[in-house]
Amino acid sequence: MRTVVLAGGIGGARFLEGLRAAMATGTTRDQITVIGNTGDDITLFGLRVCPDLDTVMYTLGGGINTEQGWGRAAETFTVREELAAYGAQPQWFTLGDRDFATHIVRTRMLAEGTPLSTVTAHLCARWQPGVELIPMTDDPVETHVRVSADTGPRELHFQEWWVRHGARLTAHGFRSVGADEARPAPGVLAAIEAADVILLPPSNPVVSIGSILSVPGIRSALLPKTVVGVSPIIGNAPVRGMADACLRAIGVETSAAAVARHYGPDLLDGWLVDDSDRGVLDTVPGTTVRARPLYMHDTSTTAEIAQAALDLAWDLQKEKENR
Amino acid sequence: MRTVVLAGGIGGARFLEGLRAAMATGTTRDQITVIGNTGDDITLFGLRVCPDLDTVMYTLGGGINTEQGWGRAAETFTVREELAAYGAQPQWFTLGDRDFATHIVRTRMLAEGTPLSTVTAHLCARWQPGVELIPMTDDPVETHVRVSADTGPRELHFQEWWVRHGARLTAHGFRSVGADEARPAPGVLAAIEAADVILLPPSNPVVSIGSILSVPGIRSALLPKTVVGVSPIIGNAPVRGMADACLRAIGVETSAAAVARHYGPDLLDGWLVDDSDRGVLDTVPGTTVRARPLYMHDTSTTAEIAQAALDLAWDLQKEKENR
Repeated sequence: MRTVVLAGGIGGARFLEGLRAAMATGTTRDQITVIGNTGDDITLFGLRVCPDLDTVMYTLGGGINTEQGWGRAAETFTVREELAAYGAQPQWFTLGDRDFATHIVRTRMLAEGTPLSTVTAHLCARWQPGVELIPMTDDPVETHVRVSADTGPRELHFQEWWVRHGARLTAHGFRSVGADEARPAPGVLAAIEAADVILLPPSNPVVSIGSILSVPGIRSALLPKTVVGVSPIIGNAPVRGMADACLRAIGVETSAAAVARHYGPDLLDGWLVDDSDRGVLDTVPGTTVRARPLYMHDTSTTAEIAQAALDLAWDLQKEKENR
Repeated sequence: MRTVVLAGGIGGARFLEGLRAAMATGTTRDQITVIGNTGDDITLFGLRVCPDLDTVMYTLGGGINTEQGWGRAAETFTVREELAAYGAQPQWFTLGDRDFATHIVRTRMLAEGTPLSTVTAHLCARWQPGVELIPMTDDPVETHVRVSADTGPRELHFQEWWVRHGARLTAHGFRSVGADEARPAPGVLAAIEAADVILLPPSNPVVSIGSILSVPGIRSALLPKTVVGVSPIIGNAPVRGMADACLRAIGVETSAAAVARHYGPDLLDGWLVDDSDRGVLDTVPGTTVRARPLYMHDTSTTAEIAQAALDLAWDLQKEKENR
């Protein structure tokens, strides 16, 4: 069974932990390919940081700080303190010593001309995440945010808006800088084509999954496949993070149904919403919606959610075959 | 009083501590300019490391690991352990977490096109070493070592020979790669011209001071000045380090007199040797040799050595004036 998952950071990584657990109980030889968001990658102190790829890698590799959901466990911050002593900017993005090593290895390999996908495979050789993790593209894509500032409209890097300003500056839109010229990384389209199921975890639909879909060729490759998503919105709030600020910026209501409609019935075949959102079951034309508990309390509840997504995908495929 | 010091790493840094202390007791407004060796700079993990500049900066800035003489005090090694976990090479060069921050700041500034001399001034703005520290050149110069290996002659980076092999591979010579095209960094020639005295601390005469002298224009600028050196050799052994291996490689005897003759009477006006080397007083034609205790036990004994070097320089200048 070949599953492809489009994943952002924390939400995607936790969902993947559950999916990996769900699939490990199966009898068939399963294979999970993760297409990771690189839109919120950023260069800090001359080092290339890929927050979403690393969150997936650290989480599945057992190196994550499980409490905060990002960064390394047992982390120290000596390098950061020293950089601050030199007055190095920015100081609003926290990188730990263990994490720095990852960025140092990555930056050196990139500088030597190694594509990001190969670098990611090299880093994963250490972490053994149990999935194949491929960046959406080897080309530089950076999500920028349009905001109003006192001095007039301006555009800033997604991380500056998200981390430095806590998404509190009102955003008017996003721009995937470089996406138009980006090509899917080697393996991305082949994995999609070979996939039995495509899953969209409860990642940020705008800047995580939206960023992946902005790479020319990926969305169209997904259209003929069975795509099942898990709503990142429960009630009128994101399960975690600040996805509401992103949805607001693009004029999409913060609700499970609105996110499904935003993905569109051409892309989205199935959609899991939380039990509390049962009311939206018939409000997403062209997409089959099921309700169940969606909070990812721990790996075993998350595995059940992942299994429910897979089950929905099977049912949709059987329907198709019977049609 | 303007003093220019040509300095390598540990020996140079310790001498400078003494010189700074000696000059601080004077009544005149004194100024020390240090021309630092960059010949053993090396790029590790994509980061530019300048061991000698940093040893001078950390030592005079109070950040040095005083016991080992290099690296930062209260250092930790998390980044290094993590790099090793990724299999990153080389693992024979020890960089601590605090030290990494220096190289990260430097590498970013260099990548942005900032010359090394400006980068060094920026780093020193934090450390306030009390001297002006200028790299010998802003251009890349790397000291390579010619050795015989099982597979035939080969050339390796000085640090690989020095640190990895502990200078145990027999060296047949050194090559200052890039020196021919290098220009003295801004401020180097002006400082030499304005200097009242030039001091050569007991740094490695071959790969530290020799490397500085290999930059076209520096040696010739020094010739008209009063240059006084402190022997790095006591008896037939280096005060510290493995300078004997370097001297052997270029066919110079490991003795205070041989090093003075290697510098040459055109460059070297005065030479301090240890009391135990009194026998060589008249064996260096064209250079005035004085004997005194030369072990740098602590800052106060080192200040006395530095003061003796300055005194010798004054005496030589008075002689010149009276001639």
